[in-house]
Amino acid sequence: MSTLTIPESVPAAFEDAEQLRKAFSGWGTNEGLIISILGHRTAAQRRQIRQAYSDVFGEDLLKALDKELTHDFEKAVLLWVLDPAERDAVLAYDSARRWGPGDPVLIEIASARSSEELFAVRRAYHARYKRSIEEDVAFHAKGDFRRLLVPLLTAHRYEGSEVNLRLANSEAKVLHEKIGDKAFADDEIIRILTTRSKAQLLATFNAYHNDFGNPINKDLKSDPKDEFLSALRAITKCITCPEKYFEKTIRLALNKMGTDEGAVTRVITTRAEVDMKPIKELYYKRNSVPLPRAIKKDTGGHYEDFLLTLVGED
Amino acid sequence: MSTLTIPESVPAAFEDAEQLRKAFSGWGTNEGLIISILGHRTAAQRRQIRQAYSDVFGEDLLKALDKELTHDFEKAVLLWVLDPAERDAVLAYDSARRWGPGDPVLIEIASARSSEELFAVRRAYHARYKRSIEEDVAFHAKGDFRRLLVPLLTAHRYEGSEVNLRLANSEAKVLHEKIGDKAFADDEIIRILTTRSKAQLLATFNAYHNDFGNPINKDLKSDPKDEFLSALRAITKCITCPEKYFEKTIRLALNKMGTDEGAVTRVITTRAEVDMKPIKELYYKRNSVPLPRAIKKDTGGHYEDFLLTLVGED
Repeated sequence: MSTLTIPESVPAAFEDAEQLRKAFSGWGTNEGLIISILGHRTAAQRRQIRQAYSDVFGEDLLKALDKELTHDFEKAVLLWVLDPAERDAVLAYDSARRWGPGDPVLIEIASARSSEELFAVRRAYHARYKRSIEEDVAFHAKGDFRRLLVPLLTAHRYEGSEVNLRLANSEAKVLHEKIGDKAFADDEIIRILTTRSKAQLLATFNAYHNDFGNPINKDLKSDPKDEFLSALRAITKCITCPEKYFEKTIRLALNKMGTDEGAVTRVITTRAEVDMKPIKELYYKRNSVPLPRAIKKDTGGHYEDFLLTLVGED
Repeated sequence: MSTLTIPESVPAAFEDAEQLRKAFSGWGTNEGLIISILGHRTAAQRRQIRQAYSDVFGEDLLKALDKELTHDFEKAVLLWVLDPAERDAVLAYDSARRWGPGDPVLIEIASARSSEELFAVRRAYHARYKRSIEEDVAFHAKGDFRRLLVPLLTAHRYEGSEVNLRLANSEAKVLHEKIGDKAFADDEIIRILTTRSKAQLLATFNAYHNDFGNPINKDLKSDPKDEFLSALRAITKCITCPEKYFEKTIRLALNKMGTDEGAVTRVITTRAEVDMKPIKELYYKRNSVPLPRAIKKDTGGHYEDFLLTLVGED
């Protein structure tokens, strides 16, 4: 469900590396050439190019890109060239260090990745920052958010499809009681959302809807400005339908007075190879405007070209 | 620092498997033969034997052992034959399901293993029980113990040797303040103990000792019967000097009115290939009796023979 287009015959990694070197040399930088290569290679191919670049020219490709590019285009390309786990580690680090209750990045990384992917992020965090992700998050986040984010980020959820329906019913009841009491940060809500498998949570949310009449996310919207409630809603959405969650994130980022480029870049670089196709379809359904057209309207220059390369045509 | 003795020339795994099959067949079971094989093979060799047994005889070696052996001897051999991560998963499962505040098993597994070893346990737990370890622990443990055990078991501590001395000083101060206020289950104590790297915690405990005059564990002993305090002490000991912790565990298990075979078996099967040599040395220093002699005094039969094989001679 990727929106990437890969050429039928992909050049060898060292040829791509040499083309990139050419794009950096001489007068100015050939951004078009950079986009035409890196925007049409899979994560595994980009990793090989990075390796080849370092082997041939004795320099990290990321360093070279950092010198040549600027602004939003630079940020997007650098994130894109990173391995997915390393990219998430970078995003998580930035988010943890300047953490605020409205920041959804840690929730996305903890909830919209598989258990093994999340663990790879934690390993990459060690390698890059000489610390653990939970160490930084527990240090910077406070109170109820810490109580929610640390178990969320350190979970290794079971990934099988087995579901215990009796448990789903009883935990739906627990959730309903706590939400009814407005005890949103109750230990039991946090325990259920942060430890149960995604299949089990889906069953629990279905039981909630069936037994109590509302989808759980509707009941978690009693105060739309409460940031802890937003965090809980983001978790349930990232678990049950990440495409919908990301469609909304990019919609709000584009519709903002002054586009939120950080969010646009994050969603596109992290989802292009995962589920950008359904995100694009949902976007069109919800906004009656194709996502590429919306991106064109709100961005410009090489940044625009690069994003459009990643999300593909209308 | 293992106490295992491995023969100079180890038979091929399929030969060991055939010998074991012989030990099971005919009248009665040849326990001596079983001990002479399995008690003198490394974890990797035992894994190969288990694989060979299954290939040749179409049966899991564990099942066969389960049929042939009984009581404490059976429990010890079964734990021993399991891969270390699987063995820990079994111990953790039993402990989580019948969890009580005095049970140290989850703390040992979370604190006396490396980060990668602990993660391997979590993977083995998924495979074996179709659930996550944190799911079971969060469900069964309550209150402050849950708040302590879940982050402890889900941590993936940084393992490098880098230490931030300023942080060590400031967190030693935080620990001292909270302990002084008898706020033992304070969020900050839990955060520090469950997220910081072992190297960093060592520096913090040293700063604590230097700045406030007592080792932290002494200050955590204000009420020797308080089980939460025991848990905190077990964590600091498993992190700073696991050999000492396990020496004490086996000492108390042997000295008990009615030996605690569960604890003896657990310590010996989990530590024989790790640090049983220093544990044995510490045991002799502390008790003026060699550990093998103490084991002889308190156990009997094939169980005794097997334990002595694993810990080696005086």
